Amino acid sequence: MPSYSAPVRELRFVLNELLAITECTHIPGYGEVSDDLVDAVLDGAAKVAEEIWAPLNQTGDEEGCRFENGVVRAPSGFKDAFKAWYDGGWNGISSPVEWGGQGLPGVLGLAISEMAMSSNLSLSTYVGLSGGAASVLMSIAPDQLKQLYVPKMMSGEWTGTMNLTEPHCGTDLKLMRTKAVEQDDGTYAISGTKIFITGGDHDMAENIVHLVLAKVEGEGEGLSAVSLFLVPKIKVNDDGSLAQGNNVTCGSIEHKMGIKGSSTAVLHYDAAIGHRLGAKPAPKAEGEDGKKKKRGSGAGMAGMFQMMNGARIGVGYQGIALSEVAYQNAAAYTRERTAGRALSGAKYPDQPADPIVVHPDVRRMLLQMRSFNEGARALLMWLSHEAVVGRHDGDDERKQQVSDLFNLLIPVVKAHFTDVGFECVNMAMQCFGGHGYIREHGMEQFVRDARISQLYEGANGVQALDLVGRRMGVDNGRPARALFSLISGFIAEQKGEDMAPFTKPLQAGLDDLMATTMWLAQNAIQNHEEAGAASVDFLRMMGTVAVGYMWARMARVALDQLDRGSDDEAFYKMKLNTARYYMGRVMPDTASLKMRAMAGAEVLMMPDDEAF
Amino acid sequence: MPSYSAPVRELRFVLNELLAITECTHIPGYGEVSDDLVDAVLDGAAKVAEEIWAPLNQTGDEEGCRFENGVVRAPSGFKDAFKAWYDGGWNGISSPVEWGGQGLPGVLGLAISEMAMSSNLSLSTYVGLSGGAASVLMSIAPDQLKQLYVPKMMSGEWTGTMNLTEPHCGTDLKLMRTKAVEQDDGTYAISGTKIFITGGDHDMAENIVHLVLAKVEGEGEGLSAVSLFLVPKIKVNDDGSLAQGNNVTCGSIEHKMGIKGSSTAVLHYDAAIGHRLGAKPAPKAEGEDGKKKKRGSGAGMAGMFQMMNGARIGVGYQGIALSEVAYQNAAAYTRERTAGRALSGAKYPDQPADPIVVHPDVRRMLLQMRSFNEGARALLMWLSHEAVVGRHDGDDERKQQVSDLFNLLIPVVKAHFTDVGFECVNMAMQCFGGHGYIREHGMEQFVRDARISQLYEGANGVQALDLVGRRMGVDNGRPARALFSLISGFIAEQKGEDMAPFTKPLQAGLDDLMATTMWLAQNAIQNHEEAGAASVDFLRMMGTVAVGYMWARMARVALDQLDRGSDDEAFYKMKLNTARYYMGRVMPDTASLKMRAMAGAEVLMMPDDEAF
Repeated sequence: MPSYSAPVRELRFVLNELLAITECTHIPGYGEVSDDLVDAVLDGAAKVAEEIWAPLNQTGDEEGCRFENGVVRAPSGFKDAFKAWYDGGWNGISSPVEWGGQGLPGVLGLAISEMAMSSNLSLSTYVGLSGGAASVLMSIAPDQLKQLYVPKMMSGEWTGTMNLTEPHCGTDLKLMRTKAVEQDDGTYAISGTKIFITGGDHDMAENIVHLVLAKVEGEGEGLSAVSLFLVPKIKVNDDGSLAQGNNVTCGSIEHKMGIKGSSTAVLHYDAAIGHRLGAKPAPKAEGEDGKKKKRGSGAGMAGMFQMMNGARIGVGYQGIALSEVAYQNAAAYTRERTAGRALSGAKYPDQPADPIVVHPDVRRMLLQMRSFNEGARALLMWLSHEAVVGRHDGDDERKQQVSDLFNLLIPVVKAHFTDVGFECVNMAMQCFGGHGYIREHGMEQFVRDARISQLYEGANGVQALDLVGRRMGVDNGRPARALFSLISGFIAEQKGEDMAPFTKPLQAGLDDLMATTMWLAQNAIQNHEEAGAASVDFLRMMGTVAVGYMWARMARVALDQLDRGSDDEAFYKMKLNTARYYMGRVMPDTASLKMRAMAGAEVLMMPDDEAF
Repeated sequence: MPSYSAPVRELRFVLNELLAITECTHIPGYGEVSDDLVDAVLDGAAKVAEEIWAPLNQTGDEEGCRFENGVVRAPSGFKDAFKAWYDGGWNGISSPVEWGGQGLPGVLGLAISEMAMSSNLSLSTYVGLSGGAASVLMSIAPDQLKQLYVPKMMSGEWTGTMNLTEPHCGTDLKLMRTKAVEQDDGTYAISGTKIFITGGDHDMAENIVHLVLAKVEGEGEGLSAVSLFLVPKIKVNDDGSLAQGNNVTCGSIEHKMGIKGSSTAVLHYDAAIGHRLGAKPAPKAEGEDGKKKKRGSGAGMAGMFQMMNGARIGVGYQGIALSEVAYQNAAAYTRERTAGRALSGAKYPDQPADPIVVHPDVRRMLLQMRSFNEGARALLMWLSHEAVVGRHDGDDERKQQVSDLFNLLIPVVKAHFTDVGFECVNMAMQCFGGHGYIREHGMEQFVRDARISQLYEGANGVQALDLVGRRMGVDNGRPARALFSLISGFIAEQKGEDMAPFTKPLQAGLDDLMATTMWLAQNAIQNHEEAGAASVDFLRMMGTVAVGYMWARMARVALDQLDRGSDDEAFYKMKLNTARYYMGRVMPDTASLKMRAMAGAEVLMMPDDEAF
């Protein structure tokens, strides 16, 4: 069975040293943050993840969710493990105090969410979706609904879901068929079929709160008619007690490649009672000009997009989390498994063979994974923290900058981290040789589980199109310029030769990225096919450079610590070495990516559709 | 359920047009080869693959092999489908006539093996291993054993296996513990445990012929004591009838990520009777100088290596075969599934949305897969055919050249084709979005099945080490020079501007490959760690350039056909376009690969083993 040990030292490095969150006590939520508090949070959550969640990961996969007599049963032990997370207060660590949370920085919540995802990705999906749904309700639900639903969701008594996809429509929401018909009492009758609903049914909570997109009857046929509804599995009385069931039934659950402990439900809504989230369109908008309606029903969609942005960051983090746990097991295996001798002569002459960790290519694989895990984690947590600090401390320009960076990099975090995460998990499996293919080692489960992250919350190709088609173009490319100037500025600040091994490759990567951005600006505005043709390679280039920026910053911190004579010298030397690895063996990817991105759309568009 | 249609037109293009096998009638085995014969073979095998094998692929995965009361049961229908392949004569298509085969060119056998692997990889493993084992017996078994075993293996009444791996040893054969003790009658008693034995037990044949590596008692402890033995599951009387069981028992079968219809057995040998293949060491070699023994027992090992080389090519082809069938299903899905509109405006305005095949990035994925499938298939078949033609027609220099190319590229075919094949199969799954993750579509099975090919027959990292550590260095790098001069020569022959879009990128890739080879020669000979550190990137570069060479050659053929006014213009135009795709979007990889390969070993070797 694979093992998991929360990377507490790494997380402390990012939180306390790279981000220095203990120096932000003037920011709301950061007031109580100290080294001790960080330790207590990390150690406490690690205990639940390592001791309660991780041991259920493999059994959860073997057993899977079962659909019996119309009800979904989660794998054995999941209900208690789910409860343990909530009872320990880990769900609400960075939620508002008024809703029962602890109000700590979001970045701390992210840190412990990594542990949840590494230890048991399937189980973490229930918690993640519930948290996302509760946040949407906190943001946009009418007060009465908030009071009725949010506390129960925060306590884990009820869970939440997000309902977008229908059998014939995923990305293209305007094809949606689920209908909402307003009732006399102001509620809506929701009818239609939703698929791929994560946590859509299960037996770990008393009730499930579905957030459902549906087209409102009488408000048109296009995207402007789509609004968001709260639809409980079981109706709720005004005093918060459960009433009778709503007309929501689970039709089946999907048989999937992985995350088998996470139920993926087909839900049928048959005039189920729902509450509209967000305002109705203003009456005047019901006139002839359909386009004006958008503003009116926009709040519900905005809520859904808020949840989706959060979910994209969460899914991006899944790529890191699985790569981390897979790395840990690969590293342990390569230190134990013996075969052959080091190329430079036996390193363990007393043993019949050397452990395979002595081989350069095995080390290459391990460093490839580490350089992703540590670099991507730093980028994701920096992005979250930076947005908070910038919005609190900054002037208007800085506020704009952090907002731009955050919005720009969401699809990069989602797609790049899950693409590279999947590559890394496969690399970890590869370290096991043929044994990696055998289920008992658990490595192939990580591969199967990780694969979903590239597909859900918008397939990665859609993320890339979102990046080049929408986010890059905002205000003439202001967000991308914010990223470029941030990196250039950091490079310019580094005067000493000690940083040259990091800043030179970073500059080369940045140059490739800027050149490709310029190329896109010149070519893709007239011809949108060029944007699509370049999108995936461009996103990967941006991800590669952004993670490289983090590696340069981490190298700076490590050099400073060594200068200061830290007593954890080995840690910082390894950090510097991994930074060197990234600069020497990952950053060069931008050279090829640039050529690919600039190869143009013509060859792609030439064939007739039928020629494929 | 996924579908499969044998790529007969593509195979005809490679066989008849690129390789022009119908013009080689002067070569033994090619005498009867004509367009009609090629069609008959391809169409006949396609029928079995499409109609009998493919429909059992998904059910075979769901059901898997079962281990019941010490016996392995293959999935329902496998036995009949297995029999259909042999009864149709497809197993022996390119086997010697004297052993019941049809004696046709090996390249035709390869072509139909692709169909077997695409339609049902699990089932194909039994056939592939049996054929490999039979070939070893034809080569090195004493005549009496040949007569007794080979005909039954050729007819499919018995199957064969290859037994190398033990629980504690895979790549490093000298750690082997299985023992062979000579008996008074000249047979050997074999004792030990072998794992990961593909087809090691099943109920589709009357007997199973195990080829087993074991250390001969009294011949030392190192690799020189390892010899190869024929050990039947059930002993065979001199008249060919079955006697009683041998002491070979199946302990269990592995629960694997994929190829679940292929049984992977743990076999226990408890003084099982085996026949030594290859000569005993000469008596004088039993003196003090253990090293001299190698020659004596070498024939058995040579037989095993022959089987392994064949198996590596077969496994390399698995990468193509799964990418091909996955591509077919992805292409069909993207032509059907609708979402959004083409970036340049609706292409199917009568429908509510365009099929996703209109999107440049979807086309990029499809062309990426195609460019691999067609290029890699051409390289593999060219390599096989070229070796035959060169050995038959060539002078000594040419004979040396084709032998060099073949030996050099075996690890490239094995590792590069399975690495890229796995990437392509994942890309095909990605085309399905979330639906790709659902088992019923069958795409995730292709991913799980394809994953093994990177691991078995020597993990891909081991292939890369074999390439740089052994094969590149042969006679001061003569094989690599043969490859370089072949490609340079082809480029030099192309005078017209029409080939420039292909030869220029090919030359750029070749330059990167030659520069890296030079760097390796200068750095890796003094420091073997440098060879290991560069190995995987170097292998990928060589594979990328070699496939690119095939694309340039295929472009030449397509241009000639178009010049000639072929009536299949669409086919050749698509071929040229896919060649352009490869040159514009795959060949540029060599730029980054060169930098990575030259990044050096120092950063890899720095960390202590415990630091990982």
